[in-house]
Amino acid sequence: MEKAVFYHAGCPVCISAEQDILNLIPKEQVEVVHLGTDKAGIGKAAAAGVKSVPALVLANGNVLHINFGASIDDLK
Amino acid sequence: MEKAVFYHAGCPVCISAEQDILNLIPKEQVEVVHLGTDKAGIGKAAAAGVKSVPALVLANGNVLHINFGASIDDLK
Repeated sequence: MEKAVFYHAGCPVCISAEQDILNLIPKEQVEVVHLGTDKAGIGKAAAAGVKSVPALVLANGNVLHINFGASIDDLK
Repeated sequence: MEKAVFYHAGCPVCISAEQDILNLIPKEQVEVVHLGTDKAGIGKAAAAGVKSVPALVLANGNVLHINFGASIDDLK
C-alpha cells in the first residue's frame, strides 16, 4: 500500500495532538513532513490539495484537514 | 491503552475519507460511534468537546476535528 503523508509545521500547541494521532497509525503506513523545516515539501503539499496544517493526505489522494481546538490552558 | 473514539454522522461525501483514516488505525485502538444512529452518543461527544463531525477523541482527551474538503465531483 502507498503511504499516507502527514504534513505539519511544528505548531507548539498542536504538537502533542499530532503525536497522538501518529501514535495511532502504524509507522510504516505514514510519512511525516515538517513544512517548517522542509520548504520543498510546501509545493508538494499544495499540489496534493493541502490548505492548512496539520493535514493527512491519504494514499488514495483524499486530504483530511485536522483542526485541534487548542485549549485555553495551552495558550497561557 | 484506552481507545480513541471516532465520532461521525454518516456524511455521504466524507464516508470514504472516514473509512480511509479508520483503515490506517488498528481496529483495536479505535471505537466508532455513528451519531446519526446512536443518539445517546451525542451528549457523550459534546461532553468530550466535539464541536463537529467527523472527530477523533484521543485516549488522553485531545479532540481532533477533521475537515475533508469535499471535491466538487462528489457533489454533482
